Amino acid sequence: MAGPATTTDPALAEATESDFTAISDALDAGDHARAKQIVEGLHHADIADLLERLPGPQRHELIEILRPTVDPLILAELDDTIREKVIERLGVEEIAGIVAGLETDDAVDIVEELGEKTQGEILDALPDTERSLIEQGLTYPEDSAGRLMQRALVAVPQHWNVGQAIDHLREESGTPTDFYVAYLVDAAHRPVGYVPLSRLLISHRHVALNAIMHADMTVIPVATDQEEVAFLFRQRDLVSAPVVDAGGRLVGRITIDDVVDVIHEEAEEDIMHLGGVGGEDDFYSAVFDTSRRRAVWLAVHLCAVLVGSAVIGLFRASIQEMVALAILMPIVAALGGTAGIQTLTVTVRAIAMRELTSANALRLIGKEVLVGGFNGLLFALVVGAIAWLWFDDPMLGLVIGMAMVANLLIAGVAGSAIPFVLERVGVDPAIASSPFLISLTDVMGFYVFLGLATVILL
Amino acid sequence: MAGPATTTDPALAEATESDFTAISDALDAGDHARAKQIVEGLHHADIADLLERLPGPQRHELIEILRPTVDPLILAELDDTIREKVIERLGVEEIAGIVAGLETDDAVDIVEELGEKTQGEILDALPDTERSLIEQGLTYPEDSAGRLMQRALVAVPQHWNVGQAIDHLREESGTPTDFYVAYLVDAAHRPVGYVPLSRLLISHRHVALNAIMHADMTVIPVATDQEEVAFLFRQRDLVSAPVVDAGGRLVGRITIDDVVDVIHEEAEEDIMHLGGVGGEDDFYSAVFDTSRRRAVWLAVHLCAVLVGSAVIGLFRASIQEMVALAILMPIVAALGGTAGIQTLTVTVRAIAMRELTSANALRLIGKEVLVGGFNGLLFALVVGAIAWLWFDDPMLGLVIGMAMVANLLIAGVAGSAIPFVLERVGVDPAIASSPFLISLTDVMGFYVFLGLATVILL
Repeated sequence: MAGPATTTDPALAEATESDFTAISDALDAGDHARAKQIVEGLHHADIADLLERLPGPQRHELIEILRPTVDPLILAELDDTIREKVIERLGVEEIAGIVAGLETDDAVDIVEELGEKTQGEILDALPDTERSLIEQGLTYPEDSAGRLMQRALVAVPQHWNVGQAIDHLREESGTPTDFYVAYLVDAAHRPVGYVPLSRLLISHRHVALNAIMHADMTVIPVATDQEEVAFLFRQRDLVSAPVVDAGGRLVGRITIDDVVDVIHEEAEEDIMHLGGVGGEDDFYSAVFDTSRRRAVWLAVHLCAVLVGSAVIGLFRASIQEMVALAILMPIVAALGGTAGIQTLTVTVRAIAMRELTSANALRLIGKEVLVGGFNGLLFALVVGAIAWLWFDDPMLGLVIGMAMVANLLIAGVAGSAIPFVLERVGVDPAIASSPFLISLTDVMGFYVFLGLATVILL
Repeated sequence: MAGPATTTDPALAEATESDFTAISDALDAGDHARAKQIVEGLHHADIADLLERLPGPQRHELIEILRPTVDPLILAELDDTIREKVIERLGVEEIAGIVAGLETDDAVDIVEELGEKTQGEILDALPDTERSLIEQGLTYPEDSAGRLMQRALVAVPQHWNVGQAIDHLREESGTPTDFYVAYLVDAAHRPVGYVPLSRLLISHRHVALNAIMHADMTVIPVATDQEEVAFLFRQRDLVSAPVVDAGGRLVGRITIDDVVDVIHEEAEEDIMHLGGVGGEDDFYSAVFDTSRRRAVWLAVHLCAVLVGSAVIGLFRASIQEMVALAILMPIVAALGGTAGIQTLTVTVRAIAMRELTSANALRLIGKEVLVGGFNGLLFALVVGAIAWLWFDDPMLGLVIGMAMVANLLIAGVAGSAIPFVLERVGVDPAIASSPFLISLTDVMGFYVFLGLATVILL
């Protein structure tokens, strides 16, 4: 919940582009005063963007310029790869200062990424309260509600009235600077409801808090996975939710702005996995790391493709007799693959959105088979006609048409069933589905087409 | 900002699964009282999920059960396709009642999807205030800030003090039920800052509002595209932002819970487009619609693949002479395609996240060429060895290795350059990139491999 810069410019995003050029020019010209001046007018998220975009040497210069007055939130906004480099550059003392200035969840995020030695050094350099909050944060499992939550919140006894609550809040100004609800807790510090501040404001002092509280709230156990948290927030349009420990005691709160990043990460992961790249393969990773990660995926695909080649090998005599088969066979395999990926994408997303369950899986597969059959027939006609005209052979057109129908049906079944089965056996369907699928559509595309051709044409 | 149901169950998501079965069973048994009883205990978003998952006839039964007491928010949560069916079933009068019970942005969302005739009928059936708010909402461009925003907000003159503001809020209890900030406006109703309610609560009555206000806020013009709005919220960690008309006057506010759906939609669109399916192709679309939309994409890919086939056709004599070429050629093309899609995915996301600009495009392309060259060499060795051993021909291994390096380099350049160029000429790279890419990696894969083989081996 950080304070952003004022702007009424409709082309809001263009600002950073021209700032980028201006700072880059200033750094090139060695004009650090000018660069400092531009940076000081920017929002911390935009500065983080700048650091990400600048090439190494210019980034180092900018870090030196920022060093005396670095905004802790800049570090929180940085991409992991770049953040590591910036932390290395800044050194332990500066980082400890920065970490102390962040909210617990952001601080934990940064500290957990550090090597064990640096982590220890930085924790030692922190004030005791900060240190114990962060150490406690680090005990929660990674990607759990405990890591997402803010520790600072306002909790008042449920038997109080509005006046007592307001007086308490006025006294305790060490509570979070800006807050939006007050949680009501019972004697065991378990949350029983919440009161939006607007209700406190417009109610009379003698009104009992539990008369104006919302009791219908979603309470999140501290060990809940962040994906589950994101699902709940999205599903129930939550804005904030209390987090409780194993004993049901209120230990923190998660607000939707913490969850937005999770929603983003999860969608991002799916996109990357479907595209055959790991979640960590971002724009800023080093060439060698990127190559190595992607090579694994290429190797998996190579295995899939080799199976297809082996099938072609079975029909080498047919191809020698009729070269047109070699020319046309990639069409059958490729369209099967494309149709399969379409089905796969819809299915993987339906699983991620929890729309697909065993209760309606058969309905989905049935639908995809119909779609496959329908488009199979359509493309049988189109590709059949092309093959007939190209090689002046109506029977060749018939054979490729039949293969097309068969392969698009298979693509429909496989594209919808493979992710579902993988999910049931506990494998992430976004990662593992496509090599299976491509292998299948290649093999069946080549096998059915070349097999039918061998039987019917030769 | 709806009220969710209480739950402390760690397996939170499983609830709907068993409810689904229970309701489905009750409907099958004709036990409407039981079904009604289960539904009444559910959160509106879960009821919407149920309606989506049930097959047509059961859905109709459930609608009849819900009809007397249908929660307007159920309709707001429904998937577009299913919502249309539910609206048709419920009829004009019920829908008008439902629309009147929603916040303006949700009401506009529902009304805009209706046919012109139904839209007119429903607007006529609404109270005047509701009607004019919705009609005004409909005048804003689709997917603009004006459509996202809430009209209801709390605005007070900037020269007031805390006491005046609190008294005003207590009198005006027609203001939005729960709100979290008060906006300060000048004489022309332009926003100059905001005061979180927590500051109103803990400050003394005589303190001037502009002494405790946040002046640093992001003001969003009403015509701003929703994608831009989502970017701003994410980039600047906003929780809410005032929306202004062309004259700079405060006309509404956008809160982050409205934006979460947009962030979701945008990521979803990218996933679907990269997978070759339109944004509307969801789990609930009818078979025929789905087939038709996907056929367009298959046709585009067919054109891409036909170019590859034409290239193979150029080398029919070589293939006839050496069938091993037909067996191996799909490997070169497929690995090039897979590597290209990896690069494409990273690039498309970098564009969507606004990390990629003309300033750093060359750096990205350079990196991708290096990755392509690196993995090209690696797979040249692997595939070359396989070809050598399989066909007992070292020269064949050399040729396929050379083709592999060439095609992975091309994949690196094309995968990073194509989306960037498409974006520059105003075409959505997530939609249009992959046919270009596949066409190129197919053509080059076949051409380089068969060409080199013809020159070197035959």
